[in-house]
Amino acid sequence: MPTSPLDRFTAIIPAGGVGSRLWPLSRADAPKFLHDLTGSGQTLLRDTWERLVPLAGEDRIMVVTGRAHRAAVEAQLPALTDANIVLESEPRDSTAAIGLAAAILERREPGVVIGSFAADHVISGDELFQRAVKDAVAAADAGYIATIGITPTEPAVGFGYIHCGEVVDVPGAHEVQAVRSFVEKPDLATAKRYLDDGDYLWNAGMFIARADRLLEEIARTKPELHAGLVELAEAWDDPSTRGPAVDRIWPKLEKIAIDYSVAEPAAAEGRLAVVRGHFQWDDVGDFASLAKLNQAGRSGELAILGEHARVLADQASGIVVSRSKRVISLIGVQDIVVVDTPDALLVTTSEHAQRVKAVVDALRLGGSSDVL
Amino acid sequence: MPTSPLDRFTAIIPAGGVGSRLWPLSRADAPKFLHDLTGSGQTLLRDTWERLVPLAGEDRIMVVTGRAHRAAVEAQLPALTDANIVLESEPRDSTAAIGLAAAILERREPGVVIGSFAADHVISGDELFQRAVKDAVAAADAGYIATIGITPTEPAVGFGYIHCGEVVDVPGAHEVQAVRSFVEKPDLATAKRYLDDGDYLWNAGMFIARADRLLEEIARTKPELHAGLVELAEAWDDPSTRGPAVDRIWPKLEKIAIDYSVAEPAAAEGRLAVVRGHFQWDDVGDFASLAKLNQAGRSGELAILGEHARVLADQASGIVVSRSKRVISLIGVQDIVVVDTPDALLVTTSEHAQRVKAVVDALRLGGSSDVL
Repeated sequence: MPTSPLDRFTAIIPAGGVGSRLWPLSRADAPKFLHDLTGSGQTLLRDTWERLVPLAGEDRIMVVTGRAHRAAVEAQLPALTDANIVLESEPRDSTAAIGLAAAILERREPGVVIGSFAADHVISGDELFQRAVKDAVAAADAGYIATIGITPTEPAVGFGYIHCGEVVDVPGAHEVQAVRSFVEKPDLATAKRYLDDGDYLWNAGMFIARADRLLEEIARTKPELHAGLVELAEAWDDPSTRGPAVDRIWPKLEKIAIDYSVAEPAAAEGRLAVVRGHFQWDDVGDFASLAKLNQAGRSGELAILGEHARVLADQASGIVVSRSKRVISLIGVQDIVVVDTPDALLVTTSEHAQRVKAVVDALRLGGSSDVL
Repeated sequence: MPTSPLDRFTAIIPAGGVGSRLWPLSRADAPKFLHDLTGSGQTLLRDTWERLVPLAGEDRIMVVTGRAHRAAVEAQLPALTDANIVLESEPRDSTAAIGLAAAILERREPGVVIGSFAADHVISGDELFQRAVKDAVAAADAGYIATIGITPTEPAVGFGYIHCGEVVDVPGAHEVQAVRSFVEKPDLATAKRYLDDGDYLWNAGMFIARADRLLEEIARTKPELHAGLVELAEAWDDPSTRGPAVDRIWPKLEKIAIDYSVAEPAAAEGRLAVVRGHFQWDDVGDFASLAKLNQAGRSGELAILGEHARVLADQASGIVVSRSKRVISLIGVQDIVVVDTPDALLVTTSEHAQRVKAVVDALRLGGSSDVL
């Protein structure tokens, strides 16, 4: 009896990226995925894990993260075994992170289907998510590099888009389409056109593929990087060889996002398929997005994040993130963003939320790394 | 040889009033007069003292303040003797505070000329200030209740105005006029008219009079209050009688501003004179005023108050008051007011600065007195 493709599925959670646009909430030592941004009571990483357990099982979720975050990640995910944690000595971007996990898993279990899901996105609608992943796994099993595109609910300018092509027939899956192309973040007029068109989906950065197929794509576009990943994977499961291999190979791997090394080239060759996801998704890229997420859809409201927040607001809207015990008073400020932490305070507006990253860069250059 | 009126002059500094509109900078235990609001490096109280020393001498300045502030006041004014400090067991407004000081001083030295100057105003132009006080002392010596009105430099809506009448001939004084009336804070159109008119001056709350004349005015409008003040003054300089008299009388004294008990009635009777003050004056009533004061007249600038402030601003204007060691980042906020203290944070705008008091009231009612 042939096993179901889902039985061969292993989830990968790349847990990297500080989330600079969420400074001073996100920090080098407390990156975005270690925060509760939804008031759920648990971190985004834990949310991601729990979302994937029903699909992959606790033993088949691999986390790729920085060495510095090992303890925090393990505290969040007690069921995560040593075999399923890949520690990066330094960040080398997503092709290296996901590619290494894929190479390790392929070596352990040839024919494995992997799916990569960011540790710091917010998703609701678990059943719809599961349905989309199952369809994507079916498409992956059929040989495609599969992604999940989110059906847009508004003309968002903060996301990239996936332009869908013809419907693809994949046994056991619904709503699979070829990908014509990936499109960068559009302006508002273009985003409106995409929304009306119906064939443009938000790129949620989810990739599902047979590990061997994914590695083939990397081999085709980035042969040196591929060689390094395979060599690393071969040394990985032997404690005597892993360390030296990591020291020798990892720092030299090319830093490139998987979108550019795999997704876009595969789309151009007609080997990329997209499944329509009807669940709610947000990458919570900045405080404007975080405000919206926590205003429960009501504009003009003040969202308050923080377990023991003491906020007094008088004609104020926007978001307050309270990570200190201080009383916070807001008077007559609209679409404001106030992030209050013990050593750093940010005051801006939704409109300027994207510029937080530039300020973080300025603080770094200005010698204020103590608060980054 | 008759002594000069200035030889009979004693300055009174009522150092009361929290300055609620400057919360959370001003607190019950750190009222406005104990802050450096100008970057001068010393408190407003100390500034006030130093401004009066050349006129009255260190031995002839009396400070009226709350019991809770005794230590702080004495630390600011080491030359202040016990005889020259009047401690209030609770606030009873300015007629009681200034009236008691006047009654004590009159009893010690009949015919004394007193002048009352708030502890928490900002003044620059010391010579012009001294000239105005000397003129006011001369007018007081001639029997007037004298005040100093500030020549307006703009159509301010945050101050009360003094409507000047006929020129009054006072030997040895220039620019003394009768006061027609006191006018409450005007709207902008009215303020513009006042500015153009030239006969309207800002009411800076300075009153200069012979103590006996001042007490006569209180006796006329508030006989019970006057009786209480005289009884208190008689008991004051005997350590065995002061305490019981304070306990018995002070809590029952009517709370009324000296503007209403003395200034307005005296003006109506033609007994109030005003001297034109050409010095710069500000009562720093709220953060909008504080911002303006510290922006050095350049609008669109960000004023930063705080000795060790770490502020990173990107397209921001207004004022930041830093009383913590935190990094403060402002991005794209105009006319903003950010006041950062260890236990409370305020974010508002210049436009809403007057409403800070309402928020303080709300915090009190809401059980957050710990931060007031």
